[in-house]
Amino acid sequence: MIALVGFMGAGKTTVGRILAAKLGLPFCDTDAVVAARTGMEIRDIFRARGESGFRELEREVAAEVLGRGEGVVALGGGAVGDPAIVTHLHEAEVVYLDVGYDEAMRRVGADKGRPMLADDPRALFDQRTGTYRNLADVTVDANDRDPDEIASELALRFGGRGTNGVDRIRVRLGDRSYDVVVGVGVVARLNEFLPELPNAEKAFVVTHPNLRPYASEMLDQLTTRGLDARVVVVPDGERCKSLDVVTDLYDELAQNQAHRHDLIVTFGGGAVGDCAGYVASTYARGMPLVHVPTTLLAQVDASIGGKTAVNLTAGKNLVGTIYQPSVVVCDVTYLATCPRDELRAGVAEVIKYGFISDPSLLRSLIRDIDALLAADAKVTAAVVARCAAIKAEIVSLDERETGPRAYLNYGHTFAHALEKLHAFAGLRHGEAVAIGMMAAAYLAHELGRIDDGVVDLHREALSAAGLPMTALVELPELEEAWQLDKKYKKGVRFVLLSALGRPEAGVEAPRQALLRTLERLRSEP
Amino acid sequence: MIALVGFMGAGKTTVGRILAAKLGLPFCDTDAVVAARTGMEIRDIFRARGESGFRELEREVAAEVLGRGEGVVALGGGAVGDPAIVTHLHEAEVVYLDVGYDEAMRRVGADKGRPMLADDPRALFDQRTGTYRNLADVTVDANDRDPDEIASELALRFGGRGTNGVDRIRVRLGDRSYDVVVGVGVVARLNEFLPELPNAEKAFVVTHPNLRPYASEMLDQLTTRGLDARVVVVPDGERCKSLDVVTDLYDELAQNQAHRHDLIVTFGGGAVGDCAGYVASTYARGMPLVHVPTTLLAQVDASIGGKTAVNLTAGKNLVGTIYQPSVVVCDVTYLATCPRDELRAGVAEVIKYGFISDPSLLRSLIRDIDALLAADAKVTAAVVARCAAIKAEIVSLDERETGPRAYLNYGHTFAHALEKLHAFAGLRHGEAVAIGMMAAAYLAHELGRIDDGVVDLHREALSAAGLPMTALVELPELEEAWQLDKKYKKGVRFVLLSALGRPEAGVEAPRQALLRTLERLRSEP
Repeated sequence: MIALVGFMGAGKTTVGRILAAKLGLPFCDTDAVVAARTGMEIRDIFRARGESGFRELEREVAAEVLGRGEGVVALGGGAVGDPAIVTHLHEAEVVYLDVGYDEAMRRVGADKGRPMLADDPRALFDQRTGTYRNLADVTVDANDRDPDEIASELALRFGGRGTNGVDRIRVRLGDRSYDVVVGVGVVARLNEFLPELPNAEKAFVVTHPNLRPYASEMLDQLTTRGLDARVVVVPDGERCKSLDVVTDLYDELAQNQAHRHDLIVTFGGGAVGDCAGYVASTYARGMPLVHVPTTLLAQVDASIGGKTAVNLTAGKNLVGTIYQPSVVVCDVTYLATCPRDELRAGVAEVIKYGFISDPSLLRSLIRDIDALLAADAKVTAAVVARCAAIKAEIVSLDERETGPRAYLNYGHTFAHALEKLHAFAGLRHGEAVAIGMMAAAYLAHELGRIDDGVVDLHREALSAAGLPMTALVELPELEEAWQLDKKYKKGVRFVLLSALGRPEAGVEAPRQALLRTLERLRSEP
Repeated sequence: MIALVGFMGAGKTTVGRILAAKLGLPFCDTDAVVAARTGMEIRDIFRARGESGFRELEREVAAEVLGRGEGVVALGGGAVGDPAIVTHLHEAEVVYLDVGYDEAMRRVGADKGRPMLADDPRALFDQRTGTYRNLADVTVDANDRDPDEIASELALRFGGRGTNGVDRIRVRLGDRSYDVVVGVGVVARLNEFLPELPNAEKAFVVTHPNLRPYASEMLDQLTTRGLDARVVVVPDGERCKSLDVVTDLYDELAQNQAHRHDLIVTFGGGAVGDCAGYVASTYARGMPLVHVPTTLLAQVDASIGGKTAVNLTAGKNLVGTIYQPSVVVCDVTYLATCPRDELRAGVAEVIKYGFISDPSLLRSLIRDIDALLAADAKVTAAVVARCAAIKAEIVSLDERETGPRAYLNYGHTFAHALEKLHAFAGLRHGEAVAIGMMAAAYLAHELGRIDDGVVDLHREALSAAGLPMTALVELPELEEAWQLDKKYKKGVRFVLLSALGRPEAGVEAPRQALLRTLERLRSEP
């Protein structure tokens, strides 16, 4: 068990999550568990039950989590003051993320919800720093350093799999668990990552015409494994997500005498994953499925979590299943073949993760945006692994979207409606999501949920990526499109922020606020 | 906890299973658990480890099972000789099924595998009978009585739900568990059995044209509940299981702005359950689903276990999902509206349950066949509940058909191929299964797995029901049809009996034995 300690703002959660991904271990943040179990935010627990009430909950959770076999745990800043927790720490590898007082204050400055900062933060800092040093097996300088870099250094130290250039992120869903493999050139090593496939005789690689030439490496791997592997081509982009294409795929499988033990590999962007994933989930009541996503959007989002989808004339993604793959193999070398605008659209989903879960990701993104849009292998691999870890964590908590998985729809209620409106034909999904997040920021601002700073950060991140932030759209047309939204529950609901990294789902909005939002979406830069 | 004790042949497993269904409790047979855990038959455990080795395993399982909260347990005949088990029995309601020595010997006579009968069965009987009497809280005369009658008497005594004329059988699948409700006139009380349906606004009752007039009772119930309920009509029989009909249903749902919280009710035979169940599993990634099966085949088999299916030109049921309903409501009054030949075809699946799981069901069936084919409510309710309990038990053990669920395909490998061959157009599924079971009996006999008596019992049961037992079919045409069988694994495999009530899946058969089987299928009566 690896336990991360340090003052608030040291980056324990961010570094912990990346480290866990690199080591292929489960990650846990004790504050998040306390909040989830009580259904209250930490600051509200302090308010309602006082510090001692919070410490009691924290002690219980920490004992439980540190008592598990392997994993990475981020502890609350004050946990080291609890003798019971300290006893448990003696059996863990304790990593102290050492950050200076000024840097810590700068990082948490924006977050006024930290309950321990009320009295004398400097005294608290000095007192805790001594305890951290005493407990630490490893001390890491966390000033001015990227969380990825720190996590890589720690992964090397703890001898994880991350050291051979491959990150393996586990999506934990009981007997449906699987890995997301992220790295450079990993498709050339596909057989290392494939599941066992008892009784499989054939493999069907479903892809778009333009990717056909890139499929030979994969076919070689599958053939080496003894599978009769062939490529099946479907139309480009969203056009493949039709019931007609699905029917053609069923016929192709039947003609080739596919059986339920045989393998389907999807090779391409989110659309081919949606469509061929749907076919895999429904042919012979379900065949083994492997996703090899080639776009940034698919690598960081669409390929993880098991959603499959087909469009109807009446609406996008109206037909579909939740069907988990056996493994997702994200080879970032394919990103170099993507048009720059497609990469840019994918960045919208990265920004989404920043806002709903990991604000530090936004800073790295703004800093590295040029390298990312140039498909630099090192930068893309790090970004994809970080996003995959966030998505894996959310999906593991809530496979069927009855809880936190809804956060992933941040910006998407607006985006889906925009995509549906004919006027927006040709708008990329990521571009629609960018506009949708901007709208969500305005709406949260109109409802008094977030301040100007959070709205500005939306503008800053989206404009750094060169993503669109405005749309000429009227409320009645949106309302008509929302009627068929899958998340519609006796009225449309939104995912909105209540602070940076703090999303809330199922928020209703009065018509007036929506009208103001659309006005700002039309006029503000 | 209710524990059934008694000598071998007393009917502990059969009565226990029916009783558990009537009380809505889990059922467990300790012998079956020991066999499942070791992967060995009881007789082989005796052979390999001696009686003491078996008793050790039995003690462990009995302690675990009797230690659970509520349930019905059938104990092995000799379990009462173990002091540790007796201690546990002091906390259970012990029911002694009292059967005379001659009757017990008659019942187990056919089963030469009983290891304890080797020495002096009479002495064993006398010795154990004393122990049973001492332990019993209730003693029931089990000579010359129907297991249903005994179970009903016990259900009354233990105050179960079975007393108001409704049996509730639980399909245990974790958070996907549900009840199969069996009774007379239960659809008029539908709202008692429906799930909670948070946020549902609409209900779609999918049915065939000829059942449309019977749907009003159901619509009343749904409307009372505040749902906007409407009927959607699909073509009769297998014709509704096409991708075209599925597409029409999707469009109908989209036009009526159905959402994932809304309800789909299937009302009809297995075909409408397969097709509308498939739509429910794939529209908006899954809507709540309720089956109201109206045919014997659907009530005892198709509606339980979550299989949905659509046909392709290339083969039956090639597309589908595993998607569990929220409840299955079997109202046996509908069976009176079924043509006699349709009821007869459904009896084939009842006979199947007899051969794979509960041979005593065959005796009841042969005795009650006239009342059953006349749709007598009392007889049909008892038969449906018994079969539903068997299917529920198997599905609970193996939702995705990687193990014992395959036993349900007894006779079906032949049947599916027969249905596929054009020469057999018009053959009912149940009729094909009847021929298929006869073929499976011949094949098992050819392979030396079963004796003449078991083959004769196939003939006796099938001819009592007036089901077909012969077919003019050649091996090459069957082989072609098998190529696309979903169970095909590098060659076709069969479910065959190794004794009455002892199926085995995945059996390969040499071509010569298949040729002999088809010869007998053509010529023997």
